Amino acid sequence: MGEFELIRRHFQRPGRNLPGQVALGIGDDCALLRPAPGHQLAVSTDMLVEGRHFFADVDPEALGHKALAVNLSDLAAMGARPLGFTLALALPRADDLWLAALARGLFALADAHACPLVGGDTTRGPLNLCITVFGEVMPDRALRRDAARAGDDLYVSGRTGEARLALELMLGTAWASGHAAPGALQRLRSRLERPTPRLALGQALAGVAHAALDLSDGLAGDLGHILRASGVGAEIALASLPLAPDLSALPEAQRIECLLNGGDDYELLFTAAATARGAVAAAAAASQTPVQRIGHITEGSRLRLLDAAGHAIGFQPASFDHFA
Amino acid sequence: MGEFELIRRHFQRPGRNLPGQVALGIGDDCALLRPAPGHQLAVSTDMLVEGRHFFADVDPEALGHKALAVNLSDLAAMGARPLGFTLALALPRADDLWLAALARGLFALADAHACPLVGGDTTRGPLNLCITVFGEVMPDRALRRDAARAGDDLYVSGRTGEARLALELMLGTAWASGHAAPGALQRLRSRLERPTPRLALGQALAGVAHAALDLSDGLAGDLGHILRASGVGAEIALASLPLAPDLSALPEAQRIECLLNGGDDYELLFTAAATARGAVAAAAAASQTPVQRIGHITEGSRLRLLDAAGHAIGFQPASFDHFA
Repeated sequence: MGEFELIRRHFQRPGRNLPGQVALGIGDDCALLRPAPGHQLAVSTDMLVEGRHFFADVDPEALGHKALAVNLSDLAAMGARPLGFTLALALPRADDLWLAALARGLFALADAHACPLVGGDTTRGPLNLCITVFGEVMPDRALRRDAARAGDDLYVSGRTGEARLALELMLGTAWASGHAAPGALQRLRSRLERPTPRLALGQALAGVAHAALDLSDGLAGDLGHILRASGVGAEIALASLPLAPDLSALPEAQRIECLLNGGDDYELLFTAAATARGAVAAAAAASQTPVQRIGHITEGSRLRLLDAAGHAIGFQPASFDHFA
Repeated sequence: MGEFELIRRHFQRPGRNLPGQVALGIGDDCALLRPAPGHQLAVSTDMLVEGRHFFADVDPEALGHKALAVNLSDLAAMGARPLGFTLALALPRADDLWLAALARGLFALADAHACPLVGGDTTRGPLNLCITVFGEVMPDRALRRDAARAGDDLYVSGRTGEARLALELMLGTAWASGHAAPGALQRLRSRLERPTPRLALGQALAGVAHAALDLSDGLAGDLGHILRASGVGAEIALASLPLAPDLSALPEAQRIECLLNGGDDYELLFTAAATARGAVAAAAAASQTPVQRIGHITEGSRLRLLDAAGHAIGFQPASFDHFA
């Protein structure tokens, strides 16, 4: 199977191009997108490498889902609506069943969010998936990292820490397997392998929230990006963090580690004025996405974690470094 | 050196964002681009893998140039103006000198075409560069592969075959080293390693030419893409193909192979109505790019290569397959 046949067989889907947003899809030198008048174009790219972002024996359907999900999550964090994506793929060999499963995972998520594949590249090489995603957003409604203000409420969608616990269970880490309830890995594995990009929530928050980002490297470390970009600090009340049932039996140190340094959560972390609580609740309801207020933005530059009595808890934010 | 430090040191260039086209650059979940009102967004992505697209000991500055050049060449082939690009990079190790040279090659070309780096991703892994490039073009002026019409003239910019001869000389192929003039490799190496994207020509041809593409896999094979997409055939007069001095001493079969199956030329191949000859000449002059009329588009679906007497020459178009 050659390059063109591989693309034709697995990635070309005539008639799925959504002509309102894609003027020209796969097969020319470039794809042509039509952002709506007055909108800016939001762009993000992520590269996934075997052994670094996924295991060699990963389910290819889950890999297809996740490769697109982590990119769509970046659009969600800007409040953008998806227009399309490109896929560049290096493959050690052309395995038809594997490619069909990858495409299935990819296109199920793409179709759910009206985000067609518009172009790409295929080559032989060590397994590597690079997706670039395109969306549109009104200029004054984009959710930027530098827009948090002292006094803002701080929110998180969904729950953090489950993907991290799933990873530790898969790695056989003693503290995880020693405390997790029976069946935890089966319940949590999809949180690691099939994250849900919070696109509906992100778009509902555009124009409502101030700053936002998506949680990929751990809540505390990722919050640090907002604090530095906005020149502010934050306080988080530990007891207010949504706690997944499977995390409740962990020792406190590991529970905090999962909640705040977990990674791979792909939830939205965002700030909004205290006067916008009703609007945030409405956005959460409209997008059918759970949202929890977990603290607030302060003057200064420090991140403080508070216990139930309001005392600071010693804690070291760690952000995952794909290069370390 | 961690991921963020690597990006800061080599790829962040505050103040180079060209605010007219980039509203938000590196450092947020997404970059935000501003296409001009009424324009469509042209998008292309290319992945370069060690051993497949470049040698392990490649000059990193040349690699930085080429990785962006092959993408800009796709914008040129649509008649689009560059807005920006993203770079996803997998690196086996963080080598400061190597990265500095890569960035130098990349940014020299980016600056020459007002195409800023707006975002990206960095991870450890087998060496892999994935660039996605964004440009803008008026909808009715884009140069599509399906727009060739029977009777159109067929043109090529510059000269083909020099990159292929350089590659064969580097590989030590007998027919190449046996016939090339002294110093040929020194003269031709830059044709392989530092291709020139024909952006000015592409933009000048937008609204003038019918179909266009950029030559990456060989003139004959790439022309086949236009013929199939447009449902037409073509005749090329061998004697009309621009012949580089270093190709003139090759045996005829190898000369034809370089000219028509060369690969890595990154010249524009395009068609235009016979009534547009003056406009094509004006576009070539305005962009200071040599352009040669080499044949014409016919009814049917065949590609015929004609000798000086107008007789068909037996010839097998071969298109380079990065997967074969």
